[in-house]
Amino acid sequence: MARPRQNEHRREDLLQKGIDLLAAHGYHGTGLKKILDTVEVPKGSFYNYFESKEHFVAEIIDQYSRNMLERLDHMIGEADDDPVVVLHRICSAMLAEVEKNGQRGCLIGNLAAEIGTSSNCCRESMQRAYLSWKSRFIDLLASAQAKGLLRQDLPADVLCDMLWNTWEGALLRMKIDGSTAQLKQTVDVLLNHLFLPPVSTTNQEK
Amino acid sequence: MARPRQNEHRREDLLQKGIDLLAAHGYHGTGLKKILDTVEVPKGSFYNYFESKEHFVAEIIDQYSRNMLERLDHMIGEADDDPVVVLHRICSAMLAEVEKNGQRGCLIGNLAAEIGTSSNCCRESMQRAYLSWKSRFIDLLASAQAKGLLRQDLPADVLCDMLWNTWEGALLRMKIDGSTAQLKQTVDVLLNHLFLPPVSTTNQEK
Repeated sequence: MARPRQNEHRREDLLQKGIDLLAAHGYHGTGLKKILDTVEVPKGSFYNYFESKEHFVAEIIDQYSRNMLERLDHMIGEADDDPVVVLHRICSAMLAEVEKNGQRGCLIGNLAAEIGTSSNCCRESMQRAYLSWKSRFIDLLASAQAKGLLRQDLPADVLCDMLWNTWEGALLRMKIDGSTAQLKQTVDVLLNHLFLPPVSTTNQEK
Repeated sequence: MARPRQNEHRREDLLQKGIDLLAAHGYHGTGLKKILDTVEVPKGSFYNYFESKEHFVAEIIDQYSRNMLERLDHMIGEADDDPVVVLHRICSAMLAEVEKNGQRGCLIGNLAAEIGTSSNCCRESMQRAYLSWKSRFIDLLASAQAKGLLRQDLPADVLCDMLWNTWEGALLRMKIDGSTAQLKQTVDVLLNHLFLPPVSTTNQEK
């Protein structure tokens, strides 16, 4: 029997490989056989780690979310005092990531579209992922509002929703257009126009 | 041999049934057997109508888009002179449609997430669908800008992109949250706040 630490390492390895599989083929496009072949474990061992394919995917979403938060915290940690500059930096990094990954889009958004209404345990993982992502962005947006850098007539909570929703929609457009132009436009339009205070006294408009 | 008009009717019937199947199960979740069982044609006859499952789905997207445009034109045709009122009316109707269909979301958005990067012919259909949708909305948005009802610092083209992208992202949130709250918020935030002229002299804020 493998020692607990080895098991934990193996489990995380399976989840990381699962992220790539799901991002490339979606939920229904990723059969159990493909999973087993890719992660190189026999069916029996796989079920020692995960109750079902569905539960495996739910844990993959949690892992994807942890990866994302780690990167976010790294970027926020390096921040100077201007939260809008940090927001621009994070969006640029997300864009670079999308371009590096060949326009696969966001795992959460893709799975929400495909199985959001059919898998409860995956949906719960997606909810957790969104809320943890939001917890980081809401602080930045509220801080920018407090400094008068962003409009204050809407709660940071609402700006946060708009940012996520518009970015996710732009990722869908990327898949339709075969171009990341909509992602760039989204960041520019939100941060340099729509989110600015009505009469801007900042120099955010570049 | 069936007469051409009958063939055309049968073809459209197959496409309409395909819309429901794809909306409920996605591309990979809709096997050819399920299609044949639902549309009640033998495999051989199916291939008389469509070259492949992929081409069937591309035509389904075109049909979905035609259905959508027909409804849009009906709503625009009934319009009074205030294009923002028309936009609100269309968004309310889209919301009612989403609620009626049990939160299936938008077929174009769902398929973009799942197969946007893997099927060229479906992607081309999605591009056509977006452009025809946009052609209707851009007129309404530009007209609202010309009347001073919406902000003029961004082209109607860009507002149109923002509206579609944010709506599609909100549909994903609906699937994650199990609620249409984000859709309602999106329409309110865009049309009653972010899209308004910097100092609004209208009474759009309700």
